[in-house]
Amino acid sequence: MLEPLRGYVCLKKEVEEKTTKSGIILSDASKEKPGLARVIAVGEGKIVDGKVIDSKIKENDVVVYKKYAGTEFTYDDEDYLIVDSDDILAIVR
Amino acid sequence: MLEPLRGYVCLKKEVEEKTTKSGIILSDASKEKPGLARVIAVGEGKIVDGKVIDSKIKENDVVVYKKYAGTEFTYDDEDYLIVDSDDILAIVR
Amino acid sequence: MLEPLRGYVCLKKEVEEKTTKSGIILSDASKEKPGLARVIAVGEGKIVDGKVIDSKIKENDVVVYKKYAGTEFTYDDEDYLIVDSDDILAIVR
Amino acid sequence: MLEPLRGYVCLKKEVEEKTTKSGIILSDASKEKPGLARVIAVGEGKIVDGKVIDSKIKENDVVVYKKYAGTEFTYDDEDYLIVDSDDILAIVR
Amino acid sequence: MLEPLRGYVCLKKEVEEKTTKSGIILSDASKEKPGLARVIAVGEGKIVDGKVIDSKIKENDVVVYKKYAGTEFTYDDEDYLIVDSDDILAIVR
Amino acid sequence: MLEPLRGYVCLKKEVEEKTTKSGIILSDASKEKPGLARVIAVGEGKIVDGKVIDSKIKENDVVVYKKYAGTEFTYDDEDYLIVDSDDILAIVR
Amino acid sequence: MLEPLRGYVCLKKEVEEKTTKSGIILSDASKEKPGLARVIAVGEGKIVDGKVIDSKIKENDVVVYKKYAGTEFTYDDEDYLIVDSDDILAIVR
Repeated sequence: MLEPLRGYVCLKKEVEEKTTKSGIILSDASKEKPGLARVIAVGEGKIVDGKVIDSKIKENDVVVYKKYAGTEFTYDDEDYLIVDSDDILAIVR
Repeated sequence: MLEPLRGYVCLKKEVEEKTTKSGIILSDASKEKPGLARVIAVGEGKIVDGKVIDSKIKENDVVVYKKYAGTEFTYDDEDYLIVDSDDILAIVR
Repeated sequence: MLEPLRGYVCLKKEVEEKTTKSGIILSDASKEKPGLARVIAVGEGKIVDGKVIDSKIKENDVVVYKKYAGTEFTYDDEDYLIVDSDDILAIVR
Repeated sequence: MLEPLRGYVCLKKEVEEKTTKSGIILSDASKEKPGLARVIAVGEGKIVDGKVIDSKIKENDVVVYKKYAGTEFTYDDEDYLIVDSDDILAIVR
Repeated sequence: MLEPLRGYVCLKKEVEEKTTKSGIILSDASKEKPGLARVIAVGEGKIVDGKVIDSKIKENDVVVYKKYAGTEFTYDDEDYLIVDSDDILAIVR
Repeated sequence: MLEPLRGYVCLKKEVEEKTTKSGIILSDASKEKPGLARVIAVGEGKIVDGKVIDSKIKENDVVVYKKYAGTEFTYDDEDYLIVDSDDILAIVR
Repeated sequence: MLEPLRGYVCLKKEVEEKTTKSGIILSDASKEKPGLARVIAVGEGKIVDGKVIDSKIKENDVVVYKKYAGTEFTYDDEDYLIVDSDDILAIVR
């Protein structure tokens, strides 16, 4: 399990999905949607002027994140991206 | 729906529009007006010294934004730009 | 109308003007006076330590601004420059 | 023994390990897992606004750290990395 | 007249002067004394932590200023330099 | 004698030493141990928010310092390095 | 006379000196001692959090200063260097 530290958020980049006629969902890793990712885990809120600022971001949200932000790494054969919570720009509802 | 996080604003770049004789409005995506965009959604105001500073910017305003600012992305086949609210310079009334 | 946001100022670069014998004023757009501009509109004063700091700059002042500062854009076929109010260095009286 | 100063953490990069049929664990130094490291020692927490902010990181945790962060050095023929505690992004549980 | 804004100082670079036998002072614009300038006008003092910090610099002082600092411009056929008051390093008495 | 100013520490880089059969210690200046140095003198602690923060570093400690940090100079034919006390990462006990 | 402004220090780089048999001291301007300089004049102490922090540096001290720091200039045919007082690293006693 990945537990981001205070002020960081763990993301997984969104890829295009296709549903076949028989209902099977295929996700094509080569077709990333640039700038869109799904939230995997959220660290505690940042401390600003002595107060914890909780983030509105929740697990499973699809979010837009700042281009070139964050650190990519591989864990259990899955690729993740960890970004500063301030580098998440919007939630896609 | 796109919901910008605190301190961010979602924009759509303005393009030249032409109205044909028959009254149909054509917008020419290849003719962007540099630096001008329409406000799609506004995140909550930034917190400065513990106080929320509300922005004067409202949905549908046409604004001038800082060159090279922001993150571009595509959602539902539409191109958007998310900028820091401080990178919006003026409102065109 | 252009309404600069808090802390920004909208400028129009000064160009050389010539008055012809018959009294017509010609302005030669190709002869910018580097670093000099006329103030078109002034946004509200910046907030510093919770206090609004009003700028001394007024509409129609001719000012010296910091080289390479600001964002240029075109509106109604006129070229403008929006700068941070701190990038205005002096007023020419 | 290595004693990191306030706000620093000493890491050892994780490498792939293989267990042979006879139960011997082989670690292959040439196969670093990028971005993953084991915590060797943790300095005191940073002081922010006069208060010590203790880190959640403990010795022996496996962590994700920011790419290109830190200072590498060799001590007693072992390679270590010392990073700012803010450059540790997540704990792998 | 040039009126520098808060925290800025208007300078004129010093050049070598020669007095001819007949007493005429010649200034050779091609022989700037690098780093030396005469103070033409001083803006109000900077505000630091809510207090105005008045500068010791006065009109007509000859000062040493930080290399590559400031904005050069021409006004009434004279060349000037406007620098941040913190970029003035010393007064030559 | 070298007296570092507030917030600075004077170091001497560690080199490999060899003891000959006859007990003489040879130090090989060409074999620096990268990142390791001995503390020669410690300046007063930095002032943060009006309080002196004393460093744990003492004369004669062997320390790890940040790569590329500091200013090298020669005094009495000995080479030294002065670094900001925050660029010392760990003490080797 | 050179009067450095608040927070600045005026230095003169140290050069090798040789005393001839007859007791004359020769200083060889081409042989600067890198990083060493003599203090010519000291500006008032910096203001930090509303308090003046006096520097320990006095006229005539020989000091180590940060490489590449400061502004060089010539006055009365002598070369000087003005540095921020924080760029003075140590006093040589």
